[in-house]
Amino acid sequence: MGGDNAPGVEVEGAVAAARRWGVAIILVGDADKVGAELKKHRVDGLTIAIHHASDVVGMHDSASDVIRKKKDCSIRVAFDLVRNGQAQAVVSAGNSGATMAAGMFVLKRIPGIDRPAIATIMPNIKDKTLVLDVGGNVDCKPLHLVQFALMGEVYTRRVLGKERPKVGLLSNGEEESKGNDLTREAHRLLKSASFNYVGYVEGRDIYNGSVDVVVCDGFVGNVVLKVAEGLSEGIFTMLRKEIGSRPLAKIGYLLARPAFQAFRKRVDYSEYGGAPLLGIDGTGVICHGGSSPKAIMNAVRMSRECVVKKVNQTMIAQIQEYCDGQPAAVDASSATQG
Amino acid sequence: MGGDNAPGVEVEGAVAAARRWGVAIILVGDADKVGAELKKHRVDGLTIAIHHASDVVGMHDSASDVIRKKKDCSIRVAFDLVRNGQAQAVVSAGNSGATMAAGMFVLKRIPGIDRPAIATIMPNIKDKTLVLDVGGNVDCKPLHLVQFALMGEVYTRRVLGKERPKVGLLSNGEEESKGNDLTREAHRLLKSASFNYVGYVEGRDIYNGSVDVVVCDGFVGNVVLKVAEGLSEGIFTMLRKEIGSRPLAKIGYLLARPAFQAFRKRVDYSEYGGAPLLGIDGTGVICHGGSSPKAIMNAVRMSRECVVKKVNQTMIAQIQEYCDGQPAAVDASSATQG
Repeated sequence: MGGDNAPGVEVEGAVAAARRWGVAIILVGDADKVGAELKKHRVDGLTIAIHHASDVVGMHDSASDVIRKKKDCSIRVAFDLVRNGQAQAVVSAGNSGATMAAGMFVLKRIPGIDRPAIATIMPNIKDKTLVLDVGGNVDCKPLHLVQFALMGEVYTRRVLGKERPKVGLLSNGEEESKGNDLTREAHRLLKSASFNYVGYVEGRDIYNGSVDVVVCDGFVGNVVLKVAEGLSEGIFTMLRKEIGSRPLAKIGYLLARPAFQAFRKRVDYSEYGGAPLLGIDGTGVICHGGSSPKAIMNAVRMSRECVVKKVNQTMIAQIQEYCDGQPAAVDASSATQG
Repeated sequence: MGGDNAPGVEVEGAVAAARRWGVAIILVGDADKVGAELKKHRVDGLTIAIHHASDVVGMHDSASDVIRKKKDCSIRVAFDLVRNGQAQAVVSAGNSGATMAAGMFVLKRIPGIDRPAIATIMPNIKDKTLVLDVGGNVDCKPLHLVQFALMGEVYTRRVLGKERPKVGLLSNGEEESKGNDLTREAHRLLKSASFNYVGYVEGRDIYNGSVDVVVCDGFVGNVVLKVAEGLSEGIFTMLRKEIGSRPLAKIGYLLARPAFQAFRKRVDYSEYGGAPLLGIDGTGVICHGGSSPKAIMNAVRMSRECVVKKVNQTMIAQIQEYCDGQPAAVDASSATQG
């Protein structure tokens, strides 16, 4: 209910997902509104139910509202369904902070994870890179970054199908002497991880395909995400302007358009679906507020894959293995929540 | 001497600057090599001298080498010339960490500045944005960010000619509730600044022209810079690939090429010259290692403008004004150097 164009887009995407991926869908929200949207679609042979929720978290509500005030808001009710075993995953295009808070409050964290993280998939020139955290973990401790690395590695291996993902820690240079207080200690801890930790990487490595997972705190991750969005938009705005002022270039653009469209498809977020919410004891995928039905459909696919490929179970085992390999002084519970 | 193609490119750029901007040039470096390069150019009517320096700092030397070991390296000798009143500014395409270290060691900082910063000019859809620090100040205190804001504001006003530059603090969202420990305190301090502080800005604001100066610590600034470089390259690599695989699109590209070239010129770093090193008691401009002669020429223009427009004098007055307006508890000297 919380998306920019809810619930029309969500219902359309969910119906498409039910048809295409054969998943059973429970639409959570205002039963009248959702029902009216659902009537617009053919649903023969599909398993689609409506579960009423009386309230909605808006984009400007604080994440804590979902916990303290809005007990019957759709995002919280959706996670309740997972907790009660009626559903296996939640997909939301609503307020991402509230989705994260609701997921954590209702489902709790998986053992060994102090802070759930939001991961985003970014296209690179060869394939794609998973960047996390791009959620709200702004002041992290080194161990949190280690946990993000662990979760990102498992997700990339299990869901994105990379056999031995290369995991890098985002820094201001590749040399050992680089980094800040946070990354230096995280780098030290990550060196003893059993997965393929490749060390410090730079901002450019997100796009050149040299690494599969890029780990950073949520402040830096958000900056990266917004810089990427802003720069892409900026480049195309400037290019459009230059092309638009030249008649011959306009004709040229028309001829080259299929190439631009292919590029656009390649970097189109709706192909990926959404951003996995990792570290909660259940499955959640967070979509852009303005998601298209296609993005919703692909987000359902993502969430399904997380469940089928046992992402959380793998994470739990991996974290246990990491903790067992550490000296006693490194204790996940000593990291405070911010 | 430390640039990727030194000293040929530097000499060519310096000669062009002498001719175009009428500045007197002292070329600092290996007298034989520099002299051989200089002989390739017509220098009638220009004031160009060579000052010998026996050593060079390489790209992989540490910044401390310039201070402890290489006392006769070209970058240090160049700053010595400024200290001794023989020159008024230094332009370097060498190791930027070493340039910053040499500038700070030889010229010291201007009063009230704890840490010099490197500022970079990024094109936005309307004009340009100054982002600082993109240098090596990875672990900053809130007061350092205030000082960066002050310096960036003065540079933008005096050199880039914006009358009342809008200064923003880079954060993970615009709301007051956003930010990390560092930005929250810096935000509180910046609110009492006399210049036009507009509050938190996001990564996308670097490109949409909504703000003139974006302030961040050097870790985040470096990530922004490298993400921007990597993404721009990535976008054009992917576009080229899509165009290259379609004969019709190739023809279209040829027709649209002037538009692409105009765009390229607009975002071409060599038009800006270099990155001003702010906060040292003198003037320094740091260029890309692989700078073109044009970039060197424009960097000389930048350095000249800093001197002519009395950037440092304005900064000193501005900092004094800021400090006078603060309660006694806020003391610049309490900020430690990292």
